[in-house]
Amino acid sequence: MNIEELIEKVAKGEIKLHQVEKHTNDKRLATEIRRKALERKLGITLDNIGHYSIDPNQVISKNIENMIGVVQIPMGVAGPLKINGEYAKGDFYIPLATTEGALVASVNRGCSTLTAAGGVKTTIIGDKMTRAPLLKCPDARKAREVAEWVKGNIEYLQEEAVSKVTRHGKLRNIKPYIVGNNLYLRFEFETGDAMGMNMVTIASEELMKVIESRFPEVKYLALSGNVCVDKKPNAMNFINGRGKSVIAEAIIPREIVEKKLKTTPELIAEVNYRKNLVGSAQAGSYGFNAHFGNIVGAIFLATGQDEAQITEGSHGITLAEVTPKGDLYISITMPSLEIGTVGGGTRVPTQREALTIMGVAGGGEPPGTNAKKFAEIIAGAVLAGELSLLAAIAAKHLAKAHKELGR
Amino acid sequence: MNIEELIEKVAKGEIKLHQVEKHTNDKRLATEIRRKALERKLGITLDNIGHYSIDPNQVISKNIENMIGVVQIPMGVAGPLKINGEYAKGDFYIPLATTEGALVASVNRGCSTLTAAGGVKTTIIGDKMTRAPLLKCPDARKAREVAEWVKGNIEYLQEEAVSKVTRHGKLRNIKPYIVGNNLYLRFEFETGDAMGMNMVTIASEELMKVIESRFPEVKYLALSGNVCVDKKPNAMNFINGRGKSVIAEAIIPREIVEKKLKTTPELIAEVNYRKNLVGSAQAGSYGFNAHFGNIVGAIFLATGQDEAQITEGSHGITLAEVTPKGDLYISITMPSLEIGTVGGGTRVPTQREALTIMGVAGGGEPPGTNAKKFAEIIAGAVLAGELSLLAAIAAKHLAKAHKELGR
Amino acid sequence: MNIEELIEKVAKGEIKLHQVEKHTNDKRLATEIRRKALERKLGITLDNIGHYSIDPNQVISKNIENMIGVVQIPMGVAGPLKINGEYAKGDFYIPLATTEGALVASVNRGCSTLTAAGGVKTTIIGDKMTRAPLLKCPDARKAREVAEWVKGNIEYLQEEAVSKVTRHGKLRNIKPYIVGNNLYLRFEFETGDAMGMNMVTIASEELMKVIESRFPEVKYLALSGNVCVDKKPNAMNFINGRGKSVIAEAIIPREIVEKKLKTTPELIAEVNYRKNLVGSAQAGSYGFNAHFGNIVGAIFLATGQDEAQITEGSHGITLAEVTPKGDLYISITMPSLEIGTVGGGTRVPTQREALTIMGVAGGGEPPGTNAKKFAEIIAGAVLAGELSLLAAIAAKHLAKAHKELGR
Amino acid sequence: MNIEELIEKVAKGEIKLHQVEKHTNDKRLATEIRRKALERKLGITLDNIGHYSIDPNQVISKNIENMIGVVQIPMGVAGPLKINGEYAKGDFYIPLATTEGALVASVNRGCSTLTAAGGVKTTIIGDKMTRAPLLKCPDARKAREVAEWVKGNIEYLQEEAVSKVTRHGKLRNIKPYIVGNNLYLRFEFETGDAMGMNMVTIASEELMKVIESRFPEVKYLALSGNVCVDKKPNAMNFINGRGKSVIAEAIIPREIVEKKLKTTPELIAEVNYRKNLVGSAQAGSYGFNAHFGNIVGAIFLATGQDEAQITEGSHGITLAEVTPKGDLYISITMPSLEIGTVGGGTRVPTQREALTIMGVAGGGEPPGTNAKKFAEIIAGAVLAGELSLLAAIAAKHLAKAHKELGR
Repeated sequence: MNIEELIEKVAKGEIKLHQVEKHTNDKRLATEIRRKALERKLGITLDNIGHYSIDPNQVISKNIENMIGVVQIPMGVAGPLKINGEYAKGDFYIPLATTEGALVASVNRGCSTLTAAGGVKTTIIGDKMTRAPLLKCPDARKAREVAEWVKGNIEYLQEEAVSKVTRHGKLRNIKPYIVGNNLYLRFEFETGDAMGMNMVTIASEELMKVIESRFPEVKYLALSGNVCVDKKPNAMNFINGRGKSVIAEAIIPREIVEKKLKTTPELIAEVNYRKNLVGSAQAGSYGFNAHFGNIVGAIFLATGQDEAQITEGSHGITLAEVTPKGDLYISITMPSLEIGTVGGGTRVPTQREALTIMGVAGGGEPPGTNAKKFAEIIAGAVLAGELSLLAAIAAKHLAKAHKELGR
Repeated sequence: MNIEELIEKVAKGEIKLHQVEKHTNDKRLATEIRRKALERKLGITLDNIGHYSIDPNQVISKNIENMIGVVQIPMGVAGPLKINGEYAKGDFYIPLATTEGALVASVNRGCSTLTAAGGVKTTIIGDKMTRAPLLKCPDARKAREVAEWVKGNIEYLQEEAVSKVTRHGKLRNIKPYIVGNNLYLRFEFETGDAMGMNMVTIASEELMKVIESRFPEVKYLALSGNVCVDKKPNAMNFINGRGKSVIAEAIIPREIVEKKLKTTPELIAEVNYRKNLVGSAQAGSYGFNAHFGNIVGAIFLATGQDEAQITEGSHGITLAEVTPKGDLYISITMPSLEIGTVGGGTRVPTQREALTIMGVAGGGEPPGTNAKKFAEIIAGAVLAGELSLLAAIAAKHLAKAHKELGR
Repeated sequence: MNIEELIEKVAKGEIKLHQVEKHTNDKRLATEIRRKALERKLGITLDNIGHYSIDPNQVISKNIENMIGVVQIPMGVAGPLKINGEYAKGDFYIPLATTEGALVASVNRGCSTLTAAGGVKTTIIGDKMTRAPLLKCPDARKAREVAEWVKGNIEYLQEEAVSKVTRHGKLRNIKPYIVGNNLYLRFEFETGDAMGMNMVTIASEELMKVIESRFPEVKYLALSGNVCVDKKPNAMNFINGRGKSVIAEAIIPREIVEKKLKTTPELIAEVNYRKNLVGSAQAGSYGFNAHFGNIVGAIFLATGQDEAQITEGSHGITLAEVTPKGDLYISITMPSLEIGTVGGGTRVPTQREALTIMGVAGGGEPPGTNAKKFAEIIAGAVLAGELSLLAAIAAKHLAKAHKELGR
Repeated sequence: MNIEELIEKVAKGEIKLHQVEKHTNDKRLATEIRRKALERKLGITLDNIGHYSIDPNQVISKNIENMIGVVQIPMGVAGPLKINGEYAKGDFYIPLATTEGALVASVNRGCSTLTAAGGVKTTIIGDKMTRAPLLKCPDARKAREVAEWVKGNIEYLQEEAVSKVTRHGKLRNIKPYIVGNNLYLRFEFETGDAMGMNMVTIASEELMKVIESRFPEVKYLALSGNVCVDKKPNAMNFINGRGKSVIAEAIIPREIVEKKLKTTPELIAEVNYRKNLVGSAQAGSYGFNAHFGNIVGAIFLATGQDEAQITEGSHGITLAEVTPKGDLYISITMPSLEIGTVGGGTRVPTQREALTIMGVAGGGEPPGTNAKKFAEIIAGAVLAGELSLLAAIAAKHLAKAHKELGR
């Protein structure tokens, strides 16, 4: 069959979209055929989608199926941002892919202010990727027995199951949750520089084999019982953490707040209090912040992270306080930042290039350090974004309000 | 200054990233200069980021600042999916941009099954974009007075404020929330085919002027008091809705479940029960579903939606039940799907092309119908994704488990 | 059968506990027989439980079954507390039944401070009792049709259903929630001076008849579908309110804070910020307060409220701020205080006497005013309890901390 | 001063309520004086409140201040209920103090059904009382250092702090939570047969001394930072547990369901699914149950537990399923049941008598076993209450619905 015939048959539905690869080994060609067929069938043109430099032969099956091209999302850069982390040390540029106007400019203003104030201090307080298979037990007592056994045999399980399927993944802890006759085993792993979902999924599958064979009366029903929790807003990750748990802080001298942000520490603290704490409380929110999701989202897109995990990235708390000296203390606490510098979308060339801008492409030395450095940079950028937005609100509105109130 | 000099000065930090446009009117050139400067400064190459067909002159300032190029995210297509909606009627292809392997294939399998079963029925149960400014009052009694006045003057406020700044946005309802001396006025708008955040932000600003002038003792502190709620996981939107609230349902005959999905209605219902309901309950989740976020995320990226709103898109509930006849009833309920077919990222050429694949690019006739059609298509695709994943879990694991249990 | 024989047969299990009333019309005697039988069977004495002044003939079947006596819970009194409400005006004593030492003393200290500061201002911002029956529909579209019909026919439903079974209950609003094929109709009623659960339960049963007869394809499955929400911690009531939604506020001059509470407005505000806002945020709480539950609980027990509704009474937010003049602003916001002054446990003589202490026993003139007055008094007492505890924390710990920090 | 004079002075406010004990050593007399003064001042009679057998000299200062008498709450008994626990073994009567008519009868019906089915199996899956002091740190890095040190020194802290102030309390674990510069140390203790709040409060105070002296730059601000979490609805306890975490389960043969409950396993399972799981999900609830709070509340009042902790007692999940054989599996999972058999209100004579009905008054042998036995009995009673209510809903409504649907 020649290409024209293939296009025609796909357009007519005689060959299905995912069957094109059966007719050609060249995935770039398959991508073209599918796009052409779609254009023909729908009477549209998809020229821009067809414009790309990445190689379909590399991404198809690893990252995408039924490929027809790419979406081009504009990428800007904010920075430099000075970060005084334990892994990230120095001045960093932050790539942001987004279509929301003003976002890059806003983060940039925050970076400039934070850098002028001496930079951001970052602290990683947790690091684990989790997966929680679901087991159905005869009763709660058996569930408890299994839970106690696995908690007492973490090293054995690492050796007998995890080490057989992954070099990088290490089982570090297990938190069991029992609801009636259901047992959810929340496995916590170290996953090096990878975000780690694939790794822990494979490891959990292997763990299930060991557990099923030891407890034949207990039946493994699902690799994820939704207690992991992946890609869903939830209290579990908000409270107990997932991925990197990271805090970024800065103290910004009053004169810098006034000069660069055109407001005062008092006004920023008040906005944060009434909006991010009281307002979010009223809304039953796990996001006690102004717009974590914006910055997390734009970095995730730029660097090939999983876009659905923006959800957990939007969890967290922003604090803003006036220090005894009258300066501004500001911090962001992110409990569940799920990121990696190897695997998944980080392999795609544009995404990999974006990681090189921050010096975090690929595996770190020792393993895990690149992902931690990346987490610190993201936290710094999120702090910049929060500072900038809170200051904008304070400058525009609060100032006016307070002037009139004659406080 | 020639281009080479500009690059050098930017690389050295003598010209800041956002100042490049001061030296050239051509934003494409500015983009090149910034990227080159970054390459030089960091000793890296960003060739792929520099490969794009979209015109920086069109996206800079509307969608991005400090542009250096684009990220290319692979786009695949799932479908056709038969949808029996009130706006979407017929067979649809769904563009998905992602780097998560197997996602497109999984949605595709769901589309195939649903279409074989006669398609998806979709129902829009809510449609509003909200913004909730924060006002500080002398006391709660004054807050209540303002709340009561605005609730009783919606038409007046539409005329005196909203209609002056937007033709498409209509103020439909106001829900006040009072915490101590803080008043959060959650304005609900119709926004036509736009997602509407910009529109309602401008309208809310105008509304504040009217309210401030009527109640001078009440001070407007922030345009968003975090009760809106935008880009944060929260109970408010989960319960009260935001953007489109939409439901997709299907009944899948047992023989189709068995033949196409290699499992049974009973097994799918059991997985959904123990994982999506019980597991998510245990996790304190607003996502009683398997992976809404994946499908929402991939469509959002493909079509220029706001990536940070994937968060609210991941809210919702999946139900799966065995009908009296022994078939499978499956539904997804999405309370807060914030989407549009005009404005924002939908203008970028690749994204706009993706919208044309579904026949929803630009404004609808009458206004609003394109966005509703788009919401129905997304809901259908999400149902396909849920069905496919639940079936995969059921087929692999539950079948085995039940065989051994000798049920 | 004589009494001795009856006791023996009950002790042996030949007559069941609830069958004793079949053998005697005197419920006081039945109560004695059951208690004696239990003493005999278990070899214990229940003398104190058998000591009471209330008449079993009045409470059995209305308030209790299988009665064996009473529990005596110590009752103390706090106050006077000056309240500047819209219904409660003047100085009030607050009866508190509890076994938690120091609670009454703590509330009392708060009352004394608030009264010295000029009293508490209270504002009722919501008043509704809700019940949300569950209907199973053929599909979401039918659910939406029913939802729209009921929302458009509130007056008709009031007349055709509600008015036929209750004089006091008025249907004011209906909020529908749809999940897949399930419809939860959250009916909002005014219930006068009664807490109203019985009233709205009966009215909802009647409403279901009308709705079932109009929509025969929709099936009414449960009178409460758990969206009401009664006696469970939940975001629905926290956000949307239930029972009385009430706010109490006060401004306490700095000198009173210092003299009576031995601390400063700044320290109280800091404790409230770090504990009640930040700490509760971290805990995923609907209780952004120090101990609402303690005060609500003790008043509920003293006055015959439903003890399980302490749960919703513990929802809410405490704010503490330093005013521009340096005084302390403190407020409590209670979204879901479910209380009444008639019906239920308010009829029991000790409970009724406790209500008379506040001048709120029985129905108000006009109806509903007694319950509102009672709500304002409770809110005032809760404010007293919050102030007292926050001040105690601030005085003991923060003072020391700050001294050492040399701020 | 004679008694008449005292009454007069108290009535006039010349002597404050809490000052009466300064004028008499007899607390019973002080109680009478206060009540008489109140009667006189308010022109009311409080005869029933003045009727009691408990001795004010024993409860004043331990359990109550400003005592004026007691509230009498009717007590009924449900049972016998057969429990097959690890601590509770045999048939138990359950004392319930309430003013909600039909509650005792409902629990009783559940007890009868469960006992006929062979009884309830109970399993304790967690046991800890927690307190989470709040420390303010210079920055997050210092907070992490303190957190790591305490986690690595639990035995040292037990010896140096806890063992010095309590014999029964044992520090078992520490979970740190860091938000910006705030450190919340959630201490987990074993507390024997006591509910333990007083014990862990004293122990935490002592722990703070050790930590403050080791980390002088860290300041201890509040003994409870609201991450404990005590007496507030919250995800922390729902997910991570507090007090006893206990599960009760039963399998009820179909014929018993049909005969005693007049319904079917299928209907009960359906009600539970649509109401307790789906409805509660929609409501953003931590109570995926029908009415835990009712049963917990009535037992708490009868036995001198802390009424404000009914809040956490209402957390939890009910499951109801049809087994492969067609019988009914039903379970309740209570994550945070905070109870004790010694201390607090358990000392008051009526409450202590109520505990003797279940054979759990006072300390167990070995310590802790009485509280665990009590937890198992409560769980059994809660299961009885859930079963009875779900069955009532199923029998009345679902049966009719399904008949008409012609399923």
